[in-house]
Amino acid sequence: MSPARLEAFSDGVFSIAVTLLVLRIHVPDPTSTANLAEALGAQWPSYAAYAVSFLTIGIIWINHHAMVRRLQTVDHGVMIWNLTLLLFVALLPFTTGLMAAYLREGEGDHLAAAVYGGSFLVMSLAFAGMNRHILFRKTYRLKEPMDPQRRRMILGRGVVGLLPYLLATVLAVVSPYVTLALCAAVAVFYASPLAGAAEASSASR
Amino acid sequence: MSPARLEAFSDGVFSIAVTLLVLRIHVPDPTSTANLAEALGAQWPSYAAYAVSFLTIGIIWINHHAMVRRLQTVDHGVMIWNLTLLLFVALLPFTTGLMAAYLREGEGDHLAAAVYGGSFLVMSLAFAGMNRHILFRKTYRLKEPMDPQRRRMILGRGVVGLLPYLLATVLAVVSPYVTLALCAAVAVFYASPLAGAAEASSASR
Amino acid sequence: MSPARLEAFSDGVFSIAVTLLVLRIHVPDPTSTANLAEALGAQWPSYAAYAVSFLTIGIIWINHHAMVRRLQTVDHGVMIWNLTLLLFVALLPFTTGLMAAYLREGEGDHLAAAVYGGSFLVMSLAFAGMNRHILFRKTYRLKEPMDPQRRRMILGRGVVGLLPYLLATVLAVVSPYVTLALCAAVAVFYASPLAGAAEASSASR
Amino acid sequence: MSPARLEAFSDGVFSIAVTLLVLRIHVPDPTSTANLAEALGAQWPSYAAYAVSFLTIGIIWINHHAMVRRLQTVDHGVMIWNLTLLLFVALLPFTTGLMAAYLREGEGDHLAAAVYGGSFLVMSLAFAGMNRHILFRKTYRLKEPMDPQRRRMILGRGVVGLLPYLLATVLAVVSPYVTLALCAAVAVFYASPLAGAAEASSASR
Repeated sequence: MSPARLEAFSDGVFSIAVTLLVLRIHVPDPTSTANLAEALGAQWPSYAAYAVSFLTIGIIWINHHAMVRRLQTVDHGVMIWNLTLLLFVALLPFTTGLMAAYLREGEGDHLAAAVYGGSFLVMSLAFAGMNRHILFRKTYRLKEPMDPQRRRMILGRGVVGLLPYLLATVLAVVSPYVTLALCAAVAVFYASPLAGAAEASSASR
Repeated sequence: MSPARLEAFSDGVFSIAVTLLVLRIHVPDPTSTANLAEALGAQWPSYAAYAVSFLTIGIIWINHHAMVRRLQTVDHGVMIWNLTLLLFVALLPFTTGLMAAYLREGEGDHLAAAVYGGSFLVMSLAFAGMNRHILFRKTYRLKEPMDPQRRRMILGRGVVGLLPYLLATVLAVVSPYVTLALCAAVAVFYASPLAGAAEASSASR
Repeated sequence: MSPARLEAFSDGVFSIAVTLLVLRIHVPDPTSTANLAEALGAQWPSYAAYAVSFLTIGIIWINHHAMVRRLQTVDHGVMIWNLTLLLFVALLPFTTGLMAAYLREGEGDHLAAAVYGGSFLVMSLAFAGMNRHILFRKTYRLKEPMDPQRRRMILGRGVVGLLPYLLATVLAVVSPYVTLALCAAVAVFYASPLAGAAEASSASR
Repeated sequence: MSPARLEAFSDGVFSIAVTLLVLRIHVPDPTSTANLAEALGAQWPSYAAYAVSFLTIGIIWINHHAMVRRLQTVDHGVMIWNLTLLLFVALLPFTTGLMAAYLREGEGDHLAAAVYGGSFLVMSLAFAGMNRHILFRKTYRLKEPMDPQRRRMILGRGVVGLLPYLLATVLAVVSPYVTLALCAAVAVFYASPLAGAAEASSASR
């Protein structure tokens, strides 16, 4: 299979998952809402979770492209890894909705935050697993040869990227807001020009 | 990254956002609807908001294509601008549903209209920001060189396009119908042969 | 604009509209359903409307491809016609849901059927309008020159295709089942090898 | 029609169907949930059905690509077979939701499981039918000639793949868990390196 069709299917899942997020932002029921401004204000966790998840999926999509672009052809193993990754990407509208619904409530907010952070963690794990599979087991399928040091560096950077999500998941015990803030910080960091510059310099090496 | 995959992902989000709009048009509950004709008639704001949002997203998609087509390659900054734009595009099914739900009700309709107009305004701002980024900061990435005057003209036209949405947002204070009418007028204008002729003549210059 | 990106966006809307249809088939609530077999059986209009709409959108998609394939380039007018067509395609999940919900009820079923047939009629009108625009006003944009007789024949075939939908809409007054049966018959006819053979022979002429 | 646009539309339906599955996993209502951990735990059938359906659709997508890739051009018959296949693929979010909702309840779980297994069976039947149409009736449209023995082998493998789904549907009488376990086993088998190796060796012959 050519990487092109793998990308077409993956682009589909990424763009749908990201667009489905909006279905978890509810329109307050007009028949029971006395004050719309208050009702819209009260569901700020929905907007925050929407923005964080949207950016995170968007950034994973960018990285996914960089990963797949290295491949000349795609075999069964790569496709199954890719399916596994997409299975967790497509789950995010659920965990995002859970986070948004419970952040406002006293009960269950710690657990909802742990599930939210955990879903990012598992998605990143699947990403790192797929990257490892490509870089170390399918080396002969790469478009251009890469020395082991560079391959280890790319994988290492992905593994380092897991740490904030591990932290965000664990610190849900302390406060769900810490989880949200950490996930937001990761998204903002990867969206910043800083991350862009690092990427560009590493690509040119 | 090649512009082609940026377009594939963006096309996905645009076409999904536009198709999800229909989920905000409710089928009246058969068990509690005495007169279906009346029930369908009463939700005319849903149809109006659907049509206006559909055309507006469609026109933004056309403009998006014209913008991205100028690029030879895409870098981190362009991708993040693009993600930001799509974040607001994907939000429109929510603001459209809000507008449709509250236009029929007395309470909250002004605010809902302001949010509706405001969501178009913010989307257009993101579009202008991305255009400015491409035309003035990434000039070296353009396929064909463009003199500064032409670049300023293109950007200027985009900024002028913000004014009706600014007006639509502010005039929600007067009446939500003014907001809807203004947004509809913008969509109809850009869809008219007039706008097509202006575009074609400017492209040939 | 190249026809390729018009097709990408349109393919997106067609495939999403067709897949969203399933959201209108409800899972009977387990807490209030005494007999699942009965509950599933009672909602047979949902399955019928799903199948008819799915096939109809699929066939329009096939025809859309045949229409767009004739174009060398796409201009503003073609894009706006295309948006208008897609606006009605994307509306079908709503009219399909309406039909499915009211076919089982005594009240409102005639109107729901008229709306259902009417939505197919309007979609086909938009299709014929777009075809006419391409064949008679944008002749210079066609990939291959076509004599007026052949162009008139293609358009005429499209106009003839409107008649069953007009009939289906009007006969909703008699019975909603007549509407459903007529729409189903159109879908089955166009899906049959008969229609395929007619198409192939006309293409080779 | 070129296979490329058939693939674009099909990829759209596959990726949307797979991503819509998540909408059937409900966020427990915060106002009526005393214990979120318990509520999330209780809906484990939703997660299981999600994973099984996601993998199954993903694997059908992989096989679909292998099937379509053999074709040089696509005619009316192939397109209608393809639409029929997609009609059943797009139905899976409904049958998956049904399975998830009733597996937890005492009443109706056998029937829901039979519908779930049956929907996989019917989808596989449509797939085998399309494959047979391509391999035996459209031989002249294949990119490369294939001897009858190899064609019979490919089709035979597809027919053998129906058996577990037939079994899963029938054994719903015994227990819905048997159905779920069988469907899961099929997905895991086709995702395993074993299936990958068999595929690769058969492709190289």
